[in-house]
Amino acid sequence: MSALQFPEAPADKKALEEGDALSPRFDAAGLVTAVVTDAGDGMLLMVAHMNAEALALTLETGIAHYWSRSRKALWKKGETSGNLQHVVEMRTDCDQDAIWLRVKVLGHDATCHTGRRSCFYRTVGLKDGKATLAGDGTRPLFDAEETYREPA
Amino acid sequence: MSALQFPEAPADKKALEEGDALSPRFDAAGLVTAVVTDAGDGMLLMVAHMNAEALALTLETGIAHYWSRSRKALWKKGETSGNLQHVVEMRTDCDQDAIWLRVKVLGHDATCHTGRRSCFYRTVGLKDGKATLAGDGTRPLFDAEETYREPA
Repeated sequence: MSALQFPEAPADKKALEEGDALSPRFDAAGLVTAVVTDAGDGMLLMVAHMNAEALALTLETGIAHYWSRSRKALWKKGETSGNLQHVVEMRTDCDQDAIWLRVKVLGHDATCHTGRRSCFYRTVGLKDGKATLAGDGTRPLFDAEETYREPA
Repeated sequence: MSALQFPEAPADKKALEEGDALSPRFDAAGLVTAVVTDAGDGMLLMVAHMNAEALALTLETGIAHYWSRSRKALWKKGETSGNLQHVVEMRTDCDQDAIWLRVKVLGHDATCHTGRRSCFYRTVGLKDGKATLAGDGTRPLFDAEETYREPA
């Protein structure tokens, strides 16, 4: 449990947008969006969510923590796979409802649970009036099935 | 109104993650998260949301459209300021609940409503046990107050 607390977001727009206090605008579920890019080449690696605890732990430890909406649990990214995210820089946006993490990924340098470096491995196009996907050719960097296997 | 429709997201995880159909997983409010970066240098410009209509129009026109949660309206980004976003590439992530747009910004090359190039103009740090913000030195590229003034 982190002791770090965040002040309530100010109603005053100027204070929110130009002030020097981080006062995240958590949504109804208590979450802000987190965008994660590689600090080296800027590749978009993943989009996730943080509650106050995940955000506080990320700030205090320098290792990215999220809130898993599917598991409804705090999520230290890479705890199972070894692909921890070391935070090089954290930013927030004008209205403080999104967090940007520039990270260095440890382990296999892979972020996606499919084993790929990035979750964004498919491009979107239009073909015969339908929105289609095409892989960008990236391949898994670790054996996801083996790594995430439940203990027997 | 766009005629482009998206199929329902498949329950099968493999089809969702490895298939070639864009079947966005819209949330309870009918939205997916959109992450917008500069196609030139990869700078994170903004995070926004898209409903099916905004996504379809973006695909069909090549100009970024979003759903404004505050105004509850379709939002052709840059319509007032001239800072339209020309989409160079669109991607989606493994579970198809996020869209990545790599864009070229027209007009003033500014995306933030404060007039700055990016909405992410403040870094987050820890100081005396408090989460603080520091500006990155970027300045407005256009007069936001003048541009967004309501007609008298």
